[in-house]
Amino acid sequence: MIRAKIVGAGGYGGVGITELLLRHPQAQITCLVSLSDVGLLMSEVYPHLTGFCDTKILAPDDSKALEPADVVFFATPDGVGQEFARAELAKGAKVIDYSGDFRFDNTNDYAEYARRIKRDPVHKAPELLPESVYGLPELRRTQYRKATRLVGNPGCFAMSCLLGLAPAVKHKLVDLTSLICDCKTAVSGAGKKPNAQFHYPARYDQMNAYRLAGHQHTIEVERDLSLLAGKPVQVTFTAQVVPMCRGIMSCLYGTLRDGITPQQVQEAYREFNKDNVFVRLFDRNAAIGTVHVRGTNYCNLTVDVDERTRRLRVVSHIDNLMKGQASNALQNMNLLFSLPETTGLDQAGQYP
Amino acid sequence: MIRAKIVGAGGYGGVGITELLLRHPQAQITCLVSLSDVGLLMSEVYPHLTGFCDTKILAPDDSKALEPADVVFFATPDGVGQEFARAELAKGAKVIDYSGDFRFDNTNDYAEYARRIKRDPVHKAPELLPESVYGLPELRRTQYRKATRLVGNPGCFAMSCLLGLAPAVKHKLVDLTSLICDCKTAVSGAGKKPNAQFHYPARYDQMNAYRLAGHQHTIEVERDLSLLAGKPVQVTFTAQVVPMCRGIMSCLYGTLRDGITPQQVQEAYREFNKDNVFVRLFDRNAAIGTVHVRGTNYCNLTVDVDERTRRLRVVSHIDNLMKGQASNALQNMNLLFSLPETTGLDQAGQYP
Amino acid sequence: MIRAKIVGAGGYGGVGITELLLRHPQAQITCLVSLSDVGLLMSEVYPHLTGFCDTKILAPDDSKALEPADVVFFATPDGVGQEFARAELAKGAKVIDYSGDFRFDNTNDYAEYARRIKRDPVHKAPELLPESVYGLPELRRTQYRKATRLVGNPGCFAMSCLLGLAPAVKHKLVDLTSLICDCKTAVSGAGKKPNAQFHYPARYDQMNAYRLAGHQHTIEVERDLSLLAGKPVQVTFTAQVVPMCRGIMSCLYGTLRDGITPQQVQEAYREFNKDNVFVRLFDRNAAIGTVHVRGTNYCNLTVDVDERTRRLRVVSHIDNLMKGQASNALQNMNLLFSLPETTGLDQAGQYP
Amino acid sequence: MIRAKIVGAGGYGGVGITELLLRHPQAQITCLVSLSDVGLLMSEVYPHLTGFCDTKILAPDDSKALEPADVVFFATPDGVGQEFARAELAKGAKVIDYSGDFRFDNTNDYAEYARRIKRDPVHKAPELLPESVYGLPELRRTQYRKATRLVGNPGCFAMSCLLGLAPAVKHKLVDLTSLICDCKTAVSGAGKKPNAQFHYPARYDQMNAYRLAGHQHTIEVERDLSLLAGKPVQVTFTAQVVPMCRGIMSCLYGTLRDGITPQQVQEAYREFNKDNVFVRLFDRNAAIGTVHVRGTNYCNLTVDVDERTRRLRVVSHIDNLMKGQASNALQNMNLLFSLPETTGLDQAGQYP
Repeated sequence: MIRAKIVGAGGYGGVGITELLLRHPQAQITCLVSLSDVGLLMSEVYPHLTGFCDTKILAPDDSKALEPADVVFFATPDGVGQEFARAELAKGAKVIDYSGDFRFDNTNDYAEYARRIKRDPVHKAPELLPESVYGLPELRRTQYRKATRLVGNPGCFAMSCLLGLAPAVKHKLVDLTSLICDCKTAVSGAGKKPNAQFHYPARYDQMNAYRLAGHQHTIEVERDLSLLAGKPVQVTFTAQVVPMCRGIMSCLYGTLRDGITPQQVQEAYREFNKDNVFVRLFDRNAAIGTVHVRGTNYCNLTVDVDERTRRLRVVSHIDNLMKGQASNALQNMNLLFSLPETTGLDQAGQYP
Repeated sequence: MIRAKIVGAGGYGGVGITELLLRHPQAQITCLVSLSDVGLLMSEVYPHLTGFCDTKILAPDDSKALEPADVVFFATPDGVGQEFARAELAKGAKVIDYSGDFRFDNTNDYAEYARRIKRDPVHKAPELLPESVYGLPELRRTQYRKATRLVGNPGCFAMSCLLGLAPAVKHKLVDLTSLICDCKTAVSGAGKKPNAQFHYPARYDQMNAYRLAGHQHTIEVERDLSLLAGKPVQVTFTAQVVPMCRGIMSCLYGTLRDGITPQQVQEAYREFNKDNVFVRLFDRNAAIGTVHVRGTNYCNLTVDVDERTRRLRVVSHIDNLMKGQASNALQNMNLLFSLPETTGLDQAGQYP
Repeated sequence: MIRAKIVGAGGYGGVGITELLLRHPQAQITCLVSLSDVGLLMSEVYPHLTGFCDTKILAPDDSKALEPADVVFFATPDGVGQEFARAELAKGAKVIDYSGDFRFDNTNDYAEYARRIKRDPVHKAPELLPESVYGLPELRRTQYRKATRLVGNPGCFAMSCLLGLAPAVKHKLVDLTSLICDCKTAVSGAGKKPNAQFHYPARYDQMNAYRLAGHQHTIEVERDLSLLAGKPVQVTFTAQVVPMCRGIMSCLYGTLRDGITPQQVQEAYREFNKDNVFVRLFDRNAAIGTVHVRGTNYCNLTVDVDERTRRLRVVSHIDNLMKGQASNALQNMNLLFSLPETTGLDQAGQYP
Repeated sequence: MIRAKIVGAGGYGGVGITELLLRHPQAQITCLVSLSDVGLLMSEVYPHLTGFCDTKILAPDDSKALEPADVVFFATPDGVGQEFARAELAKGAKVIDYSGDFRFDNTNDYAEYARRIKRDPVHKAPELLPESVYGLPELRRTQYRKATRLVGNPGCFAMSCLLGLAPAVKHKLVDLTSLICDCKTAVSGAGKKPNAQFHYPARYDQMNAYRLAGHQHTIEVERDLSLLAGKPVQVTFTAQVVPMCRGIMSCLYGTLRDGITPQQVQEAYREFNKDNVFVRLFDRNAAIGTVHVRGTNYCNLTVDVDERTRRLRVVSHIDNLMKGQASNALQNMNLLFSLPETTGLDQAGQYP
């Protein structure tokens, strides 16, 4: 059994990976760490886990929390992973970090990201960056090697945009200066900590755009699209939030290059995803929405061409807490331990 | 493997038992029947099941739909089960019916129930009533025998009230003339068919009481409480609906009999539920609500005494589509096939 | 024009009375005071007021905030009004306080209330209590006199319960030991300050009971029912919260006294409310809910008798931020200034 | 007093204009007509209007419904207005139609629109089209003349897009081949009639795009943008629906023409809207969303330039039932009767 330690167990990312690991046939949770809720049982913080995970939450420096694990999930905000990953790696663990700390393999890219979120641009573990893998299996699957021990789980918006645009960029379907990502997220993407704009009465009938000056996930999107294109790519990115709990829907636009046909578009998306079991393709007539990926690791893509304006339009649907966070982290764990990607992720969601 | 047929697959009750059976280690879905959606794949009606249940939905009289099964779930409205159960039983199946058709073991009780919902009081399969079991395992567990082949799954409100009040009535804690059931349900309890009062704009910020003249579930509640009390019991029952998808919260009141102490109350509830793995007990200080049973077969009870007024107050929480419907039906299946009650039901829900 | 000063302008109670005063033909807002948001325009805090109320929010000790007003609304939490009301009264203002500070006319009752909410039981302005009026016009209308200058606006739950039970108690319809108040509130009743349990993802599909050990509004309910009964009355009170923005629905129960008929019940409610323009009576067949009082000063009562159990059941609907707070405060202002009670309150709500 | 008749009183558009006319100082409702709910009082259909509008709903051919009015609102679906407008005009009324029936001034444009929504492309009152005014005051104000008697109220999506893009097109800020309208609507835009996808449980945590093959409002948007540009303009238009009651948020994109500066953009929007009292301009840092126009006739525009990609991004916020429907219809009435545009529309909304 893979011994799993979860740092940041008290947050949505922590409870998410907890729920998934409880169902995983080859892993067990051996340690829960959090700054908040220390000394409480996980089931006291999350009563739905009563009888399922009555494990005590430990402080990071508790002696029991220092015992070695096989995998450590840093379900933590920016800055935590880069401070503590080194010690976990030294004890032989593989590390999967949810934040931006290990999404970049060099200090320059990290610094640009850090400035965008107003954090110190100097990385605390720069020597680890070159070995980190950007944990988006559908784009980087070949980079997971036996020796890989450090993964930076992608941002939720980035996940939805990259899965939606990668085939178009890789297969040169679109004008690279024309890309627009219009992204709508549910509220849980902002985490568990209450704030004024996500207070129920302030949100129940309210939608809005935010961070128009520049969302940090843009950097990941542009980095991976540039890698696929072989040259620099920029996108216009608009983050919006709607009164929902779970779900991201990103509408992705790009002008078709001359001569590209709708049939070529469909074919490119099928070809790109032929090994991606968690990506499902639909056409414009499918009646799908975010609810159909809710609670799962799937990304559903509606691939469409507006023929009048010769514009590619892809609607990308994920559960921000799953493919956008915890279940993708588990998919990463499976890859790190040479398990089938679907292990522990082979369930449909629950409807309605 | 238990071969399971689901009649009424297109509704919420049908998709609920489908999701559960897909995870059940000893059962497989062999047939999906519905009046609506005939000829479609289940995954076309419910796209989240794409890749999980791409089975074609059959008309009831389709020759493939007539093949024998080991268990048939009638996830159907009142009147269907009583018409078709006989044939299924004749083919050797065990039958679990979601409606009121088999919740009563005699024609008199059924007739009273039928009149309440304005249906024909003459039962179409009266010979089957005496052998039917009221499928509330926590109250009727000893009645499931090897030969039992017909179960009437309880009403969702009745489930929440009976699990909350049974210990008090059985242990003679309360004045039997003082019982009040104040019940709040989420909208999915009314099923999948759209109607004016559950149209999103009409419901998003609206709660109301309904059917004040008499809700049909009252009859089940009073029947089983009377059996426990050994004499007739009546309750005041108020059905209410709030803007939620899943959940029933019933506040249950009764005046304590002279001499009964809060300690005796707690003890009676513990004693009553010592073998009921799906009932969890909490005291007044627990911060629990319906979300903590969401997607599960659990009933969480807050057992409290208002000492100033010497009144028992139990807050009963279930997921109306699970313990109030599909997962309780699966628990019934487990009992009918001598499996552990928890088989296929051993998962916590997902939060948030 | 009545010069109105609002203390606590930044909260829901403050913006509520602001919106109402903007439409009141005989009042104008002359001063907005708040501890938060000082120096901002009201329309910066509440952008929907852009062009309607671009008034600067002042600190309490700002010299402009100290100028006399004709009426001061303390839309503030417990403790503020008792500290500052004296000075406002001295400057000639009438005072309407939203909190529990002036809901009791003697220090003993206040102390009991204060202990319930874990505050200092010693009132800071005890000399003012005897002259305060409990601001529930439908019960206390005759107590508003020309000289009245201090009103304690009722608690929102108390409003819903008292309007629902007062006729039954006054007309001796029910056994006074049998009263139960099962109260459901929308989230805005907890105010503007975000907290964990009202964070959107934690609340969107969650309902729960809370403060079972004793809600402070119980005291007001019992005090006024006791006054109507001429002897001590106690109630069992259960507070619950559902995922809504606005609305309280209280189900109120009491066993009918021998000989009381359903007709007498209806008549008593009509008689009691014959001058109460903001109370509307419905019978059990009316399809009403909280949405039908949303944004208004109305209380809609469904008056019903469960004849099988001889139990009175009243369903009381208010908007917790209106009849439960701001619009009732305005009704109080109208009474204090001898205006028709409906002035500025003569609008229906908006649907849906 | 302007005598107003409302056809289609039973729907959301009907109740919306009813609520507004009840507050209008120079109009009174003299007749309510509907196919549904005939014989009921308006307050029976909409209980919040009890005491405000207890008028009986008449069948269209009721003799009282045939009496002349000064203005007739056709709050009806496509096809009704074109059948009955002629008779109302003949009796001297001015007509304001909510549907697409009179949004086009020639049969060709109408036919294209009608085909898009799968209706008969032959207009039933073609002689009226040339005199109809497209009722978007901010773009067409000069076309309202004393003799104007027929107005086609714009589609809600079209309203949000045109107010957001008109300044950019008129002032030649953007490349006309680059326009994208990414539009999110609340559910009430689909009307009062329940359907499967807007059933509460199906919608509460679901967002989706729809009608990707071509939304009919695109035609209005392109028509008016083409008029402003002096040449044909096409847009890519994506309709989406989110779990809300009221609100449209449209993100509008276009590539800036060479040499255009962000300052010129801001200036163009200010210049264009200098007489548009219902359009409020904000910059990218304003924390606004749809809730801030809820229940009002305002359109709030966030005008932004993504300088990295030289792309104009306008976020347009309206209440789909108000500026997108009923309150804009009232603004049209004011223009038709030479009243100030703001008459009866001079209220802020209610928050939260």
